[in-house]
Formats: sequence, C-alpha cells, structure tokens
Amino acid sequence: MNLKMQRDELQRFLGREFPQVSDDFTIEEVSDKEITVRMHVSEQNLRPGGTVSGPSIFALADVAVYLGILANIGPEALSVTTNGSIDFMHKPKANTDLIGKARLLKLGRVLAVGDVLIYSDGMADPVARASMTYSIPPKRA
Amino acid sequence: MNLKMQRDELQRFLGREFPQVSDDFTIEEVSDKEITVRMHVSEQNLRPGGTVSGPSIFALADVAVYLGILANIGPEALSVTTNGSIDFMHKPKANTDLIGKARLLKLGRVLAVGDVLIYSDGMADPVARASMTYSIPPKRA
Amino acid sequence: MNLKMQRDELQRFLGREFPQVSDDFTIEEVSDKEITVRMHVSEQNLRPGGTVSGPSIFALADVAVYLGILANIGPEALSVTTNGSIDFMHKPKANTDLIGKARLLKLGRVLAVGDVLIYSDGMADPVARASMTYSIPPKRA
Amino acid sequence: MNLKMQRDELQRFLGREFPQVSDDFTIEEVSDKEITVRMHVSEQNLRPGGTVSGPSIFALADVAVYLGILANIGPEALSVTTNGSIDFMHKPKANTDLIGKARLLKLGRVLAVGDVLIYSDGMADPVARASMTYSIPPKRA
Repeated sequence: MNLKMQRDELQRFLGREFPQVSDDFTIEEVSDKEITVRMHVSEQNLRPGGTVSGPSIFALADVAVYLGILANIGPEALSVTTNGSIDFMHKPKANTDLIGKARLLKLGRVLAVGDVLIYSDGMADPVARASMTYSIPPKRA
Repeated sequence: MNLKMQRDELQRFLGREFPQVSDDFTIEEVSDKEITVRMHVSEQNLRPGGTVSGPSIFALADVAVYLGILANIGPEALSVTTNGSIDFMHKPKANTDLIGKARLLKLGRVLAVGDVLIYSDGMADPVARASMTYSIPPKRA
Repeated sequence: MNLKMQRDELQRFLGREFPQVSDDFTIEEVSDKEITVRMHVSEQNLRPGGTVSGPSIFALADVAVYLGILANIGPEALSVTTNGSIDFMHKPKANTDLIGKARLLKLGRVLAVGDVLIYSDGMADPVARASMTYSIPPKRA
Repeated sequence: MNLKMQRDELQRFLGREFPQVSDDFTIEEVSDKEITVRMHVSEQNLRPGGTVSGPSIFALADVAVYLGILANIGPEALSVTTNGSIDFMHKPKANTDLIGKARLLKLGRVLAVGDVLIYSDGMADPVARASMTYSIPPKRA
C-alpha cells in the first residue's frame, strides 16, 4: 500500500491541527503499517521522581496510532478515538524521552485499530503497551 | 468503612504531590465508595472546535479513581496505575468543565479497581467511561 | 424510550439465533437502559475448585450488553462485538449462578457501548466488571 | 532465559489442570517470550454462519498468555487473570481453526502482561488482538 502522507507531511499536519501538543512529538519513521513517534518529555509531563505521567504515555499512544492511520488514509479524515486500553508495565526512566512504536492492525471502512509499545529511550523493555480504536467518518459525496 | 482522608485532605495531598496538575482538578464530593472530581478545562486541554482532548479525559478518570482509593487507604500508599481502559462515547461540549464520577469496585490487598463516568458539566449523557486498576505496594514493616 | 423487544421476545431470539448457548442464559429483567441476565453455571464453565472460568464470565458480559442493545433497537440488527475490556476482581463462588447487570451507556448510529457488573448469585460484591462495544450495521434501504 | 516448561510439559499440564478445555487447544511452539497455540474449532464454539464466537476467541487469548507465563515461571504458580482487553477486528473464517500468537511483555514479581494476535488458520490478517494481565501469587516460604 502506498502511504498517503509521508513523515514531513504528518509532522506539518500535527503542527497545524494540534498546535497545543505538536511540539511534544517528533515523527521518527513511517512505513506501511508501522510508525515511530518520539515524545519530548518536559516538566509538564513529569511526576514525583522525574517519571512520566500515565496520561502523557496515553497521549503518545493515541497520537502514534492516529498518525499511523492518517499516513494510510490521508489528512482529510476526521478520525476520533473511540476506545483505548493501556497497560503500564514499568516506571519510565526519569527525564528521558519516550518512544512509541505503533503498528496498524486493522484499517476498515468504519473502524481502525492499532497497538503501540512504548519505551524509555535507550531501554530494551517497553514501559507500556496500548491499543487504540478510531472511528473513521464516512467520506463526503 | 470510615474514610481515611476527607475532601480537603485529598485536595491538599493533590496540591503537594502533583503540583503540575493539581490546579486542574477540584474534588467535589467523597463518600465511602464514590468520589466526584471536576476538571477545569483550560486551553492546554482543548482540541480543534473547543473540545477536550482524549488524554485529558483519561487524566480525569485516572485522578478520580486514584483519589477514591486514597480516601479509603490513606496517603501513605504509593499506588500506581497498572491498567486503564476507556471508551470515548460523545464529543465533550466546547469550553465546558468535565465531571468525573468514580466508584470503587475492588479494594484488595494488592490491586484496586474503579470505574468512572465522565460528563460535560450540565449534560445528562456521559461523554466517556473508563475503568482503572491500581497496584498497591506492600506496607512497610 | 420504548423497548423494541421485551424479555420473552429476547429469550426466544436467543434460543433461535444462538442455540449453542441459549440454555445457559435466562433474561431476568429488562428496562429502558438496564438488563439483568443469569448464567446457569454448568460443569463446562467450571475450573479447578468449582470456580467459573474467565471466558464464561466474558460470555455473560457479552450476551448481557448484546441483549440490552437489541431490546432498544430490535431483532433485525446484526450487531457484532468490536471491543471488550474486563476486570476479574474476585473468585466467583463455587457452583453458583452468575448474575450480569448491564447498563447501556451509548446507543449511537454506528457504535453502542454498555458496561456490566457480574455477581455470584447472592453475593454483595461484584466478581467482575466489563465494558463492551458493538458495531451496529447500517440499515438496509 | 531458560524455559521452565517445554511444549509437551505445558500440554500435559493443561490436560491435567483444565480437563474441560484441554482438548480444544494444541500448543504448537514455545520459545523464550513467545508461544503459539491452536484452537480446534468445534460446534460448541460456532455462531450463525459458521463463525467462531467472541468468548471462544477470548478463551484462546487467555490460555495462550497463561501458558506463555507458565513456560517461564513453572507449573507451581496459581496465576489468575485480572484483566483482559480484546479487539475483534475481522470475522473469523467459517469452520477453521484459530491460531493465537502470544508474546510476554512483562514478567514481574506480582503481575505479568502479554498480548496476542489471533488468526484464522491460513489467513494473513489477524481476526483479533488481545492483551491479558495475570496476578502471580507470592511464593510460599
């Protein structure tokens, strides 16, 4: 399948549509069914001990699968998250970026599903896993 | 069961332990197995159209169940979220606070489970539901 | 909202469409947004110690929300489960029926969401909670 | 890491501890962090159209992660499922075995987490994905 949006295009889309958070995320790699997104951990994401908050990890999972879908269907779609499930498995390393590696498992007419492994940059074991479902709105005539 | 922490005590705990986010949340009511928490929606939580972001809704669910557990076990415990599952059901009303109503379903020795309904303030139907699991660390001798 | 299917009608529907499992379930009560379904626990559902298996509990959650949706939209719809999330909180009582109490949280054009508390008959605390999402196929013209 | 139980040992364990369901499952491959389990689809698992029921798919996910954990920690542990999350993505092929490919993501002192992709035998795209959490009881002194 040919990608409808390449890395730079996705990054610009994020900056345009989600200016509140786009500086937090850098798209590192996009391929057919996989995408890697870096979250730049800042003071706002931290919790006591320098660890990254759960909702910040969720945000990375959400944005990674979202961008993976857009890479495949293009920027016109107003997809919304309908379901997310996340397991927090290890405490993230203090003051360290998070890396989300997402894969697209289903790209249907109405629903898309992806899952994500999230790593503290440089660590071998994932700190979290998540799966996300998006509702894809019908195309306009 | 007697509450180990009342509303004001929980609010102070939040301010002390989670200064990055404590201004976002006001604890409205705490009872035996239920807690109501308001999220003050600010520019940072918004998405195009004035709606509240998914990760912000997740954050409210997380904090509501967390505080409901602390109300029952007291402030000494370093509970961490191990699992969260969330369904986004309706678009939140633009520029409107969110209200999370959590109930504690299990308070075990090792794991605690709660679920939450999340409302746009003043609306009848919930915008989201979530369930969260926390790991409760063993007491020190 | 008026129910499109009453209790007896739902029970007959179950017998007709799902003969493999219909004897396992009795619909006890149906109202606008809530439904109570009993699972008759049999040898097949049991695990060592007389407890009920996880997949059997999942099956009760699934059928309860499914029937709650059908009660509201009628028998014509070929709804399918798209997502389920379940927390097993206590060991079910040995050789005891399970009672699932489901509530409908969203009944949209495309997706319906419900959650369920599951009890060992006669016990106060739920043994499990689950939330289920169904995809509702478009009406035929 | 050395496996504590090999394939044949796991299969015998299943037959001994779970006689109600052990004939349904064949362990095909076990390695360090991954396990492949086949579910022999029978009449009892079917739904209208010859498709496999959701709870049967859940059962395969559950057993695959469970056995993957036991392969690593040995048979003495009485692990129980505490949480499961599943996405049903495609209708399984009629009257066709299901193959579950599980990977172990966390093997902690108290909790273990794994996820699973489930395929209709011979098909390229997964019909479902699931993630499961198990509570591992403390070792006896």
